[in-house]
Amino acid sequence: MTTATLLVELLTEELPPKALSKLGEVFSAQIHTGLAARKLTTAGDAYQWFATPRRLAIQVPGVLAVAPDAKVTEKIMPVAVALDAAGQPTQALLKKLEAKGIPTSEIAKFEKRMDGKAEALFYEATVKGVALDDVLAGIVADALKKLPIPKLMRWGDSDHQFVRPVHGLVQLHGSRVVPGEVLGLKSRAITLGHRFLSSGEIAIGNADAYADLLKTQGKVVVSFAERKSIIAAQLDAKAAELKATINPSEGLLDEVSSLVEWPVVYVGEFEAEFLDVPQECLILTMQQNQKYFPLLDAGKKLLNKFLIVSNMQVDDPKHIVGGNARVVRPRLSDARFFFNQDRKATLASRLDKLANVVYHNKIGSVLQRVERLEALAQKIAVRLGANASLAARGARLAKADLVTDMVGEFPELQGIMGRYYALHDGEDAQVADAIQSHYQPRFAGDALPQGPVACAAALADKLDAMTGFFGIGQVPTGDKDPFGLRRAALGVLRILMETPLPLDLADLIADAQAGFAAGVLTQPVAEPLLDFMLDRLRGLLKDAGYAQDVIDAVLSQRPTRIDLVPAKLSAVRDFLQLPEALALAAANKRIGNILKKAEGATPAPVSDLLSEDAEKALFARVEAIAPVVAAHVAAGSYADALKVLATVRAEVDHFFDKVMVNVDDAAVRANRLGLLKALFDQLNAVADISKLGV
Amino acid sequence: MTTATLLVELLTEELPPKALSKLGEVFSAQIHTGLAARKLTTAGDAYQWFATPRRLAIQVPGVLAVAPDAKVTEKIMPVAVALDAAGQPTQALLKKLEAKGIPTSEIAKFEKRMDGKAEALFYEATVKGVALDDVLAGIVADALKKLPIPKLMRWGDSDHQFVRPVHGLVQLHGSRVVPGEVLGLKSRAITLGHRFLSSGEIAIGNADAYADLLKTQGKVVVSFAERKSIIAAQLDAKAAELKATINPSEGLLDEVSSLVEWPVVYVGEFEAEFLDVPQECLILTMQQNQKYFPLLDAGKKLLNKFLIVSNMQVDDPKHIVGGNARVVRPRLSDARFFFNQDRKATLASRLDKLANVVYHNKIGSVLQRVERLEALAQKIAVRLGANASLAARGARLAKADLVTDMVGEFPELQGIMGRYYALHDGEDAQVADAIQSHYQPRFAGDALPQGPVACAAALADKLDAMTGFFGIGQVPTGDKDPFGLRRAALGVLRILMETPLPLDLADLIADAQAGFAAGVLTQPVAEPLLDFMLDRLRGLLKDAGYAQDVIDAVLSQRPTRIDLVPAKLSAVRDFLQLPEALALAAANKRIGNILKKAEGATPAPVSDLLSEDAEKALFARVEAIAPVVAAHVAAGSYADALKVLATVRAEVDHFFDKVMVNVDDAAVRANRLGLLKALFDQLNAVADISKLGV
Repeated sequence: MTTATLLVELLTEELPPKALSKLGEVFSAQIHTGLAARKLTTAGDAYQWFATPRRLAIQVPGVLAVAPDAKVTEKIMPVAVALDAAGQPTQALLKKLEAKGIPTSEIAKFEKRMDGKAEALFYEATVKGVALDDVLAGIVADALKKLPIPKLMRWGDSDHQFVRPVHGLVQLHGSRVVPGEVLGLKSRAITLGHRFLSSGEIAIGNADAYADLLKTQGKVVVSFAERKSIIAAQLDAKAAELKATINPSEGLLDEVSSLVEWPVVYVGEFEAEFLDVPQECLILTMQQNQKYFPLLDAGKKLLNKFLIVSNMQVDDPKHIVGGNARVVRPRLSDARFFFNQDRKATLASRLDKLANVVYHNKIGSVLQRVERLEALAQKIAVRLGANASLAARGARLAKADLVTDMVGEFPELQGIMGRYYALHDGEDAQVADAIQSHYQPRFAGDALPQGPVACAAALADKLDAMTGFFGIGQVPTGDKDPFGLRRAALGVLRILMETPLPLDLADLIADAQAGFAAGVLTQPVAEPLLDFMLDRLRGLLKDAGYAQDVIDAVLSQRPTRIDLVPAKLSAVRDFLQLPEALALAAANKRIGNILKKAEGATPAPVSDLLSEDAEKALFARVEAIAPVVAAHVAAGSYADALKVLATVRAEVDHFFDKVMVNVDDAAVRANRLGLLKALFDQLNAVADISKLGV
Repeated sequence: MTTATLLVELLTEELPPKALSKLGEVFSAQIHTGLAARKLTTAGDAYQWFATPRRLAIQVPGVLAVAPDAKVTEKIMPVAVALDAAGQPTQALLKKLEAKGIPTSEIAKFEKRMDGKAEALFYEATVKGVALDDVLAGIVADALKKLPIPKLMRWGDSDHQFVRPVHGLVQLHGSRVVPGEVLGLKSRAITLGHRFLSSGEIAIGNADAYADLLKTQGKVVVSFAERKSIIAAQLDAKAAELKATINPSEGLLDEVSSLVEWPVVYVGEFEAEFLDVPQECLILTMQQNQKYFPLLDAGKKLLNKFLIVSNMQVDDPKHIVGGNARVVRPRLSDARFFFNQDRKATLASRLDKLANVVYHNKIGSVLQRVERLEALAQKIAVRLGANASLAARGARLAKADLVTDMVGEFPELQGIMGRYYALHDGEDAQVADAIQSHYQPRFAGDALPQGPVACAAALADKLDAMTGFFGIGQVPTGDKDPFGLRRAALGVLRILMETPLPLDLADLIADAQAGFAAGVLTQPVAEPLLDFMLDRLRGLLKDAGYAQDVIDAVLSQRPTRIDLVPAKLSAVRDFLQLPEALALAAANKRIGNILKKAEGATPAPVSDLLSEDAEKALFARVEAIAPVVAAHVAAGSYADALKVLATVRAEVDHFFDKVMVNVDDAAVRANRLGLLKALFDQLNAVADISKLGV
């Protein structure tokens, strides 16, 4: 059983950069799966995937030329059917054997074994292992079909289809070419190096030599991960030379790693006068259109230098640097033009245009939405005791930058440009901040809006969206959340809980509903939306590490003051550390069940109707702690409230030991139920503790 | 020639109170004019007019029963026509005499006199004086026809018409009834007293006794002025008793003086709980609907007490006071209801309704106006470096109270209620203040809006109105100013000049124009509106006591920085005190005329082309003072600039004595003109001083 490394490489024209690493991973995983399924692998899951703009490849160690034979046990049929009374093969058995190509001589080797309730005949066969040469091309072709490719191409006269035209196929097992044909290409041991830095064909002598050979001879770093770390190291080194840091950008490093085979980082520069334009615009155009890495100084201010990741290594980079400078200038000029043009009209003067932008055909235009946001932000600001004029103004102008040229070109700058333009219009700084941050938090971990004016605008934005879509029946289901309502819900919850803001969610939803014209909201909103948000809150708290039963205890009371939830949670968590906790939880559940079954009213308990010592003791205790618990709850000292409640445990246990609740005397029964009800209300003043310990 | 006092009284049903004093004055003036025209008066302009709710009367001293005969000279005809060649009367003369009833025997007494270029015959006739009895009723009837009465009534079966039914006519000459009939009533010497406090007819023995008799016997103070001063004194006394002051109200004292014949002031009271309603509402409803005098404490806070001017004198006023309290309660309840109702919707939510209120059919709705105001106030705030968000918000909400119930009921409360409602809505205090004071100044002497946010809103309100109406050709002409544009102009001027605000009027007008949709402003605005405002400014400054020539000197330069005008005016006034002033003014005028006639360019003067000592001296002087004058002007030290300019006088006089400007050498001539131009520009740097001393 000899093994060797297998190399498969598909040489193509430049692959789509945003998908490249995914393509490389899937291509390799599929091939490896195909090999493993055919028992051609011997090294477990070990393999290495490669991807460059021009190639996808996989290197699998320990691949067999021929898979080992395998023993398989097969059920033939029940014994009762297979053999007659004399133990001779029946016609049925003989036919089956014929069909399966098993000689009758094998019958003697059949094993009798119970299969369910009946005995059956089993046959152990040996299956011949497949040869690598027979299956590899098929495995590669299958892998290509499974790639996540949105759009296929044809090329030349061929009928073959792939995301880009393909020009070469390497299938090398050790130093032997594995014959085969994929996409019309016959396998060879020959590939190409870097498009400019290498010339001529490269013969791959051995599958193991692939990566080194391409690096030394081909000027290609075939490993995606290696290229990425080379680029990152070069970027960091160059930035450090310039005493700068690189503006962080998700995805850009991956993207440039997908664009080069031989990465070299150069420093580019643009005219300092462009720095008058907001740096967010310059950064975005450099990153998005040019794939440059903008550089920031120690104060996070943009420098007029940037880093270019090039595919070319040259001794004198002036042509590369100069060429990039020439290319970036028109882009920055565009940004400056948009910026100057946009500032000629105030944000307020753009509101008219929002009347022509449809928000949703059942909810109306963006201008109508803005008018609701204005009223809602005002109400929220009043509830917060904040400056309602500024909140209303901020909400009113929040969407106006959507119809500026800059945001038209770079939608990512929505809010950011609004802030710049508002300040240019002479708007209050709080208004400008509200315009920028009303979108926040935009994703998990994003910063929250700061200050009550910005919070009012941000809450209004999200509450109006949720209310509107719930009101027209567009509730998120499963994976579908086209209007981002889950994100909006999480945003509202985080703002209320983390800022924190003393607002009642039910009030906020009612305020939001009041802003819609009659007839728009055709579906119920208040309850479903509150449920939806409490579900999101449940998830948020679980992710934050709270135990399920603690969360249930607090949220089963459907709290609407979200800002108070963390204090309740930690109070309950502390309570759980007390020795009395679980006993009280159980007692609470028991009382709840008793009260649920009780018929008639449960009046407040009176001492005159008490006879047993145990109920007198419990009554006295409940009477004594009631004002203390109430005071703690009112002060938000939930932990203290629960601590006081814990002290009632002995009396509760004693009560259930000694006192029968459901006695015949209706007055006494009602009084005992009343006593339990009074206790129950207190036990649930902070959370439903019956959920604890479940 | 015996004279006696004449009394005329017309007894009527209750006359319209707001017009009463005017009716009384015009009635008396007309009768007196009628008597004087007929030479029946001997005491010049002496007469006394009376007016009560039930009567108009006049008392004229020294009236003749019969007017004296009078000599009149009448032109008969030219001598050439009247007499033939022989000096005998012609047929023409005889016919004329016959027509005039002059016996031919009188011809001898005719006087010959030059009449223009021809000699004519003149006749001096004696005209018999008229008898009072023959003309008085006619005079009274004529006077009634000339009263400023909007609507006449008929009464009973009569065909006579007057503003109210009339019930008695007194025409008394001394103690003698002057016979006559007016409006179907025969004159008598009998009248009626107070409707409730007096009973039966009152015979007037003598015209002189009228006022006393009615006071003692009729419980009527017939003099309007006397009643007014009695009421004022009683109000002051009662207020002082209550340690309160009366809320000042133009017109209310006149109005109550027109409602009572026998004024008595009582103290009324309303439930203190109504004081929760803004006191402006309570004051207005009490004054306007109830004719009460609201009382304020030392801090100008409304008390729940008020003063009632009653027509009834009673020992125990509890019924009067109680009745008034019952009547005022529903009014105050209404005010409270409006106030509570209005606060259920925010001002911002009312903007929609303004879309349905037409501002002007060529200019659009009030909502469109509000949107212009918002943008304009924002621009002005930016120019002032003020908070543009608050200015825009204030302007946006400025008109929203027009569609509240309270302002619908009491339009006088516009702005005031807006401020209350804005504060209730949680709007910024500056926004609320801007809403209230954007109407200011509403009349001459009214307070100005305070603070840049309020000023921005107030300027926007007025500039938009003027720009809009000028733009559709609705320019005030003569007495006609239906849109109050003169008041608006004065408001803008006072805000700019008195606050003062460093804004350029031309910029403001351009800003206002920019707010109108294309096609609305069909007429030129900028120049005509600036001219209109400078005309108003001229009047304002004249009223402030500035001399015409000083005003002309400053305003003929069409200044647009109105805030700098007062400094320029006082600089020019100071300059006029200098001995050099008038000589320089004359020189300035002379230079202006020379420059006007000069052809071709006037280049900056150069020393090389100077030959005469006088021009060299002037050149040196002008060169020396130029930077000093410029620095003073830039610093707004206009008086200092003019003082420096005054020092140039000797050189100017010397130049004109010694130097000929229009010499043949074109270069020298142009250089001298250039020198004069340089001097001229400096002399006019502050004001056109050629206007001085005119």
